[in-house]
Amino acid sequence: MADLSAKPVFALHRGGKMEIAATVALRDAADLSLAYTPGVAEVCKAIAEQPEMADEFTWASRVVAVVTDGTAVLGLGDIGPRASLPVMEGKAILFKQFGGVDAVPIALDCTDVDEIVETVVRLAPSFGGINLEDISAPRCFEIEQRLKDALDIPVFHDDQHGTAVVTLAALRNAALLTGRKLGDLRAVVSGAGAAGVAIARILVEAGIGDVAVADRKGVVHAGRDDLNPVKREIAAYTNRAGLTGSLASALEGADVFIGVSGGTVPEEAVAKMAEGCFVFAMANPDPEIHPDVAHRYASVVATGRSDFPNQINNVLAFPGIFAGALQVRATAITESMKLAAAEALASVVADELSPDRVIPSPFDPRVAPAVTAAVAEAAREAGVARS
Amino acid sequence: MADLSAKPVFALHRGGKMEIAATVALRDAADLSLAYTPGVAEVCKAIAEQPEMADEFTWASRVVAVVTDGTAVLGLGDIGPRASLPVMEGKAILFKQFGGVDAVPIALDCTDVDEIVETVVRLAPSFGGINLEDISAPRCFEIEQRLKDALDIPVFHDDQHGTAVVTLAALRNAALLTGRKLGDLRAVVSGAGAAGVAIARILVEAGIGDVAVADRKGVVHAGRDDLNPVKREIAAYTNRAGLTGSLASALEGADVFIGVSGGTVPEEAVAKMAEGCFVFAMANPDPEIHPDVAHRYASVVATGRSDFPNQINNVLAFPGIFAGALQVRATAITESMKLAAAEALASVVADELSPDRVIPSPFDPRVAPAVTAAVAEAAREAGVARS
Repeated sequence: MADLSAKPVFALHRGGKMEIAATVALRDAADLSLAYTPGVAEVCKAIAEQPEMADEFTWASRVVAVVTDGTAVLGLGDIGPRASLPVMEGKAILFKQFGGVDAVPIALDCTDVDEIVETVVRLAPSFGGINLEDISAPRCFEIEQRLKDALDIPVFHDDQHGTAVVTLAALRNAALLTGRKLGDLRAVVSGAGAAGVAIARILVEAGIGDVAVADRKGVVHAGRDDLNPVKREIAAYTNRAGLTGSLASALEGADVFIGVSGGTVPEEAVAKMAEGCFVFAMANPDPEIHPDVAHRYASVVATGRSDFPNQINNVLAFPGIFAGALQVRATAITESMKLAAAEALASVVADELSPDRVIPSPFDPRVAPAVTAAVAEAAREAGVARS
Repeated sequence: MADLSAKPVFALHRGGKMEIAATVALRDAADLSLAYTPGVAEVCKAIAEQPEMADEFTWASRVVAVVTDGTAVLGLGDIGPRASLPVMEGKAILFKQFGGVDAVPIALDCTDVDEIVETVVRLAPSFGGINLEDISAPRCFEIEQRLKDALDIPVFHDDQHGTAVVTLAALRNAALLTGRKLGDLRAVVSGAGAAGVAIARILVEAGIGDVAVADRKGVVHAGRDDLNPVKREIAAYTNRAGLTGSLASALEGADVFIGVSGGTVPEEAVAKMAEGCFVFAMANPDPEIHPDVAHRYASVVATGRSDFPNQINNVLAFPGIFAGALQVRATAITESMKLAAAEALASVVADELSPDRVIPSPFDPRVAPAVTAAVAEAAREAGVARS
């Protein structure tokens, strides 16, 4: 282990990346008797009589559980709960740094859908929100839906909706920059996992002209007999053009390519897209097509990487989305709250647009406040705000 | 709620008592690419190949879950998980303040023994230790035992063992102060719940002359047909004197009274104890007998309250016990580690003893380091240390 520890990334991770801190002083017996026994009993009794007082007088309403089973960690696949922890801790500190939201990693030693759902339901009294993370598709869809049905706190699978919100924001600005309307664009999404499915949904909700989703076997359409329930659902509300062929054939004349597959797209396929097309090649660490190559054909290019312009980074969305939802004690994160987050995120750089700047930097300090405010307002409008 | 919020204890609790903090900087894209993607993937891969590396490169091995089901919170009884949170948060910040141990409140929305056990087992990859808290007897005994069997990290029910360790430490020093030996003392414990059972056990392990436990129906003895399994076990290894009567009759001639019942003991009963007896009346907030009255008969008096001398306060034990166990990555907290904790705790004030000072103050800075070192050493001797 000695050689590993010398590497900067291991040196940084030694001992983990986070800690707990008290927000009240414990200097003497008087402090102790308020923060703990006997004084604390009075607060407990008040909550026992009026359960909603827990929101005001405990940290639970402020803290998000970052829940995983370790089955789809980054591009590494099913590496298990222990090995997923560095990602979950990273997520937790991004929540804090970018949204002021407290978060705790919860890596579960079970992969059965029923077991994950019942476990999270049992944990729920300790948390104000549930961020599902790196759970493999299609289990992630059922887990999220069942938890949303069972709980009255925000449940959000970031690999789906965080990615979808940021993608929509970038697409909105790319369209604005090039004088086009979402309703006139035909998009092709490569990848029918968590991110691909959620991106297709949000694009439809946002009014995209048409969107087709392709998995490894080609475009998802109702005539295929190999679709899981989620893909069948996608087939029902995407692909109005009725495409049935390969990803490459779908890209012919398409205005937008969105890659969340981890695969590759040949230059020839991109060359056949519509003039002035947008290429979002978001696979990490290797984009589906290199940005330099994509630029030969596309007016706007985005990736998932920090070392190229226009990084589609979930950290632009999830801290503000949860901050806004928790601020108003929302009972859920609705579709309208996600759309509001995308709009707010896009608007941050709407006056500064260029082909290399359709989305803000993760370190742009305007991002989280804008997203937070928009999500809180959308929660009120949707009637899911409790305060 | 306005009137409540004006009270200091509610003002202090507003927003909860704890937060998360990052221990690494997130200033720019370079920081982000180490603490999160893409750099973090290398740490995940290393742990996937060598799971024990999670101990070194995540916070999990440092963090304790403070787990409750809210069924026996302080003296308030079964007030449920939400209402228990202020206590669990208090516990978490005491862990940090007094032992440097990170801890997270986990209040569960289930009370079935099987469900609690399976839930905690599923959570375990995220934690380095499990502190069970305020779970009602006799369920707490089975839950602790089954979790100890299932997990290879420390599992510790503080209401049992924390109280037992501090009680033993105070008793050791009371004996030292008055020139007596544990082996010559006959003790009576009032209360056969979590604390009473654990105190009886540790006193036997420490070599007490004799100890009898009394519940509401009198002394626990093998001839009773109303005993639950835990009390039957107690009957087997306590009460060598073969007492069968009431608490008051057991106290006649006894050297030590230990009250963890929440009931009361009449002055007449204490008056009949042996000369120079010790009275530890630890019920909170109302001791079984007022310390001023007890002093008429006892050479040493202790309570559970901070406003009388000799406070038997669990915070003297649990932070150091977990700090020591986590320091050496112990697979369990053994009986010998608890005895070592009691000895170390007693030794802190062994040279400063007086009737009003048989146990250190919770704010004595020597306590946690002494307990931590002793527990770590005892773990090594017991062969349960992994580092």
